[in-house]
Amino acid sequence: MALKVYVDRMSQPSRAVLIFCKINGIDFEEIRVDILTNKQFSPEYKAINPMRQVPAIVDGRFKLFESHAILIYLCCAFPGVASHWYPGDLFKRSKIHSVLDWHHSNLRRGTVGLVFNTIIGPLNGLPSNAQAAKEGEKLLVRSLAKLEDFWLKDGRFLTGSLQPSIADISLVCEIMQLELLSEKDRDRILSPYKKVVQWIEDTKKATAPHFDEVHGILFKAQKKFRERMATESVKNEVKSKM
Amino acid sequence: MALKVYVDRMSQPSRAVLIFCKINGIDFEEIRVDILTNKQFSPEYKAINPMRQVPAIVDGRFKLFESHAILIYLCCAFPGVASHWYPGDLFKRSKIHSVLDWHHSNLRRGTVGLVFNTIIGPLNGLPSNAQAAKEGEKLLVRSLAKLEDFWLKDGRFLTGSLQPSIADISLVCEIMQLELLSEKDRDRILSPYKKVVQWIEDTKKATAPHFDEVHGILFKAQKKFRERMATESVKNEVKSKM
Repeated sequence: MALKVYVDRMSQPSRAVLIFCKINGIDFEEIRVDILTNKQFSPEYKAINPMRQVPAIVDGRFKLFESHAILIYLCCAFPGVASHWYPGDLFKRSKIHSVLDWHHSNLRRGTVGLVFNTIIGPLNGLPSNAQAAKEGEKLLVRSLAKLEDFWLKDGRFLTGSLQPSIADISLVCEIMQLELLSEKDRDRILSPYKKVVQWIEDTKKATAPHFDEVHGILFKAQKKFRERMATESVKNEVKSKM
Repeated sequence: MALKVYVDRMSQPSRAVLIFCKINGIDFEEIRVDILTNKQFSPEYKAINPMRQVPAIVDGRFKLFESHAILIYLCCAFPGVASHWYPGDLFKRSKIHSVLDWHHSNLRRGTVGLVFNTIIGPLNGLPSNAQAAKEGEKLLVRSLAKLEDFWLKDGRFLTGSLQPSIADISLVCEIMQLELLSEKDRDRILSPYKKVVQWIEDTKKATAPHFDEVHGILFKAQKKFRERMATESVKNEVKSKM
């Protein structure tokens, strides 16, 4: 029985797991858990992941959630996975644990704080929260500076590596969430960090064509959001002239 | 040259690393980085950990930060560490990664949100933030319920284990931060979760006498905070009668 991977491609850790499985030729079944229609709260999904979040996997009788834990598991459980994704060398492996842990409270929290409170929340009928968005952006910008000056200072990929690891897929998928912002905002935030921009491109190339294919839904959403924002901006302009 | 461990015992992940080293008889030098006087921002410490947080370790030429990554490294680098702390079995190990990842965005974020915004921040001259404290408590209570109903449902320790792992030390040290609240608030939050309360006791026993010794500074701070809160409460009472 093939590995079952429960995901919503609009979720950045879900995309990381999918891209990883595809680039490594892991035989799996993708099962969509539509967050927009609250499918993660169904009793069936509660039995898979009681935390009611995506992604989660079921491999035979073994169930697992939390994307970093899943990526590490896949590296160890599937012998065909090349060692650069999760090196056996203790020092290299420890640095990957370190950047993945750092990610939780920094890059991820910043990106989610900004994108949720400016785009996702309001589009789902939640009140916008300018203060939370501002704090999110502050943490995001601080995290991008640390990526530029520390995590990417010694190599093309994180922790000074010449080849990508699970950390690169994980963190780049997170940053891709910024595509949901307006082009102007995305560029204002991201463009000062040249190494980061280059690293995103390098990670895309290293995981092509799966990276773009899995992000297809995000680009569709981006188009819709940007059109809606443009319409609202025109509406506001008309209103202000009345 | 012995392992160097950079810590402030008021920080919960610092205490987790110290207790782990002591219970496993690891030869190490404890180097205090006093957060209260901003020693983490010194140029010397920046060279150890550019993220300017504790804990961090230096083992020979190898530097590492992020407490979960450090605990995993110590389990692998020191052959004397018993396997229950970080099992070699892939399924058991993966569950430990999962609970440690979950910790970042749930129990830790909830506890820090509550304790920082009600106690630590205001005592350090920062404005108190009732909304952030309320959100922290909400996330903390939700996390305690998940510990009770899921993570502790199958055994004395996390993920159904009969012996403690690095996750137990890590998460219990986090919950110990609630000792800084008033006794009434601590009990109101914690006492509904019987399994959690028992698990804290079991983890203390499994790591005695180091657990209490390393937490000594926290209990001293608790005494001081509670005395100060009592004085301020009397002052407010007198004011309200004037």
